[in-house]
Amino acid sequence: MKKKIGIGMLGLGTVGKGVANIINSPEGRNPLISQLQLIRVAVRDINKNRDLIIDSSLLTQDPQEVIKDPKVDIVVEVMGGIEPARELILKSIELGKSVVTANKAVIARYGEEIANAAKNAGVYVLIEAAVGGGIPIIEPLKQSLGGNKINKITGIINGTTNYILTRMTKEGESYPDLLNQAQSMGYAESDPTADVEGLDAADKIAILSSLAFGGSINRENIQTEGISKLQNIDVEYAKKLGYEIKLVGIAEKAENTSTNSSLPLSIRVGPTLLPEEHPLAGVNGVNNAILIEGDPVGQVMFYGPGAGAGPTSSAVIADILNIAGIQLMGGESIPLDPLLSGSTWRECHLVKPREILQKNYIRLITTDSAGVIGKIGKIFGDQDVSIESIVQFDATRNGAEIVVVTHEVSKGKIYDALSRIESLKEVKRVAAHLGCL
Amino acid sequence: MKKKIGIGMLGLGTVGKGVANIINSPEGRNPLISQLQLIRVAVRDINKNRDLIIDSSLLTQDPQEVIKDPKVDIVVEVMGGIEPARELILKSIELGKSVVTANKAVIARYGEEIANAAKNAGVYVLIEAAVGGGIPIIEPLKQSLGGNKINKITGIINGTTNYILTRMTKEGESYPDLLNQAQSMGYAESDPTADVEGLDAADKIAILSSLAFGGSINRENIQTEGISKLQNIDVEYAKKLGYEIKLVGIAEKAENTSTNSSLPLSIRVGPTLLPEEHPLAGVNGVNNAILIEGDPVGQVMFYGPGAGAGPTSSAVIADILNIAGIQLMGGESIPLDPLLSGSTWRECHLVKPREILQKNYIRLITTDSAGVIGKIGKIFGDQDVSIESIVQFDATRNGAEIVVVTHEVSKGKIYDALSRIESLKEVKRVAAHLGCL
Repeated sequence: MKKKIGIGMLGLGTVGKGVANIINSPEGRNPLISQLQLIRVAVRDINKNRDLIIDSSLLTQDPQEVIKDPKVDIVVEVMGGIEPARELILKSIELGKSVVTANKAVIARYGEEIANAAKNAGVYVLIEAAVGGGIPIIEPLKQSLGGNKINKITGIINGTTNYILTRMTKEGESYPDLLNQAQSMGYAESDPTADVEGLDAADKIAILSSLAFGGSINRENIQTEGISKLQNIDVEYAKKLGYEIKLVGIAEKAENTSTNSSLPLSIRVGPTLLPEEHPLAGVNGVNNAILIEGDPVGQVMFYGPGAGAGPTSSAVIADILNIAGIQLMGGESIPLDPLLSGSTWRECHLVKPREILQKNYIRLITTDSAGVIGKIGKIFGDQDVSIESIVQFDATRNGAEIVVVTHEVSKGKIYDALSRIESLKEVKRVAAHLGCL
Repeated sequence: MKKKIGIGMLGLGTVGKGVANIINSPEGRNPLISQLQLIRVAVRDINKNRDLIIDSSLLTQDPQEVIKDPKVDIVVEVMGGIEPARELILKSIELGKSVVTANKAVIARYGEEIANAAKNAGVYVLIEAAVGGGIPIIEPLKQSLGGNKINKITGIINGTTNYILTRMTKEGESYPDLLNQAQSMGYAESDPTADVEGLDAADKIAILSSLAFGGSINRENIQTEGISKLQNIDVEYAKKLGYEIKLVGIAEKAENTSTNSSLPLSIRVGPTLLPEEHPLAGVNGVNNAILIEGDPVGQVMFYGPGAGAGPTSSAVIADILNIAGIQLMGGESIPLDPLLSGSTWRECHLVKPREILQKNYIRLITTDSAGVIGKIGKIFGDQDVSIESIVQFDATRNGAEIVVVTHEVSKGKIYDALSRIESLKEVKRVAAHLGCL
């Protein structure tokens, strides 16, 4: 091999430091690491006191200096946030540089714009670290599973909520207490909205869907529900019925109800009951896991640490190595590897929320009067909702609690049935409505 | 994209048919599939009656016709067996053609010879299907985890034995009965030796180790034990102590006891007790899973169907696409991608069996006399073996059964202690000795 590959980095937080650390300690790692050289690093405050693992002369407060440096071959964006990250990624592409980014928010929103710019410029934008932390999932989807028709993705792709849900399940603590603890342990941010409301998981399922189904995904249309309203009683009842509740993102092919050729997809994020024997049901704590179902591969699952400096920097380095390997083969003179660049190749659209098919878990607060189960059962029947189980749990003060698990049915039919059920005089309210696998 | 990539195939069994099937039905898969064209297929008997999914004019009984056809760019070896597979792979390389193979037996034994030939000829030999069926594991090890120092691999990498062990655990049936059933269901071959004696798993852990640790592995020195002598009573006792027994392959860095710079590795295959909460403990039936521990990624696991036509052909196609992508970039005119070609880059050696460190499960048949636990405990103590638990299980006819679980210790010390324990007059025999995680 002939030359060094120059790395310019935007950001030097925990992930950036992790990346610098790997580049500076090549021994015992893939020999390609020793071909990498850190050229320039942009930080917000050059005077901030930091445990410097890199030469302070590499630091600058001006990100333009990083991306414009002629010795920088690959730009690594680990600053986070939407702007100026998006702008700097686009500018780097314009300058003919390949980009590695861990920025799921930018990619989920501006992925198409960025991918088109990269294609026109003949450079790569790789995003392994954007989903699943250290778990190799982007590259396997693009490269190892390319022969498959992917039918479904189910993922636990947010560590913060999985940590909270695991403790709710195992220790019965309440959501607000656990959120506080997660914040003080650094597992949740001071503004936890993106995590606990499912927005981060929606970013990630959008990215995975685009790669798996080969089309661009309208992120804003993904039905998204978080865990902030989830109650311990539902975790408990789920357990009694043989389920674990996890926040999952699901993307699957839906039935084609229109005549156009665009692929209909059902994509949603929410707290979901998983049968105990489901491969994702045992994924606990801050771990992530993604289950892919394809033809002919069947079910494959990828499991590991979903966040953290070490895992994330492992993923960033994977992308850097991929680009470096190709640059060492012949630099910018050779065309893009179609598999690695992974462009979209068909139209996709999201079906309307009412058309999403799923099993449902529903908890109703009712008066404790005879015949109420019969009335509820009749309405579900009238609305074409088939019931898997209906159980009355003991309740002392507030009348009775009735939990219904349905077979797979469209959300539209469930909404209609629930609105009729809510108008029954014996029914005080619908206390919970969750998806179920 | 300009031209078609010609595929020549050696073998048209279930995997070969699966591969042909994917190539002939590109719709809904990665668009690169439509750039592939099946040129020539070698079969043993051209007159055999088969459900032909390909044009019969492509068939030949002469494999040389396949590899020498100038339209064949990539040779896919799915015939199995050592010879003539090895020879045909080497001949294809000599002819300047990249090779995709699912042949773990050839790669585990002749991987170094083949890799060197490929390097000299400037072609790829890709082997995703050789380990873990449809699970992407070879490519993630080479590409996605390249920034890591890999410390340990633990894998359930043989579906036949995992199927048998799962049923032993869940239903208490005996090994000979289950082997018969597995044979009649097509999960085990008529000569099951390679599977049940751990030889197939040893081939695979050798291949994974070479990729993970970057050195060539002497396959013949891997300590290998199968499941043919495993008794239901040990599955049962393990369960009572909170473990599942699985046939696993383990490869990890060992302590360096010599002064040379070669990396010492501890590699073994055998039935092993896994704590119930271990990520591999829940992997059941014919599924496989591989757990990788690296710095800085931590633990990542890859799970899925370990065999079968669909999964294996998915893996073969992944390799074909990788090579096709590069050939479409610029054909043979560009140098090898160092990451994808994945050569070895350091010396490794296997430590002696007596130097392997592990926890142990030991079952002893003893007379039911007072003080026997004390005597056993003393000998272990004298030999520097620290005990985690020692339990006397009820036994009616044959005296007592004593089960010992040790802390991690060298096999040498265990062998020495067991030989002293066997000479105790109260000890009838060592009935079982298994590794433990």
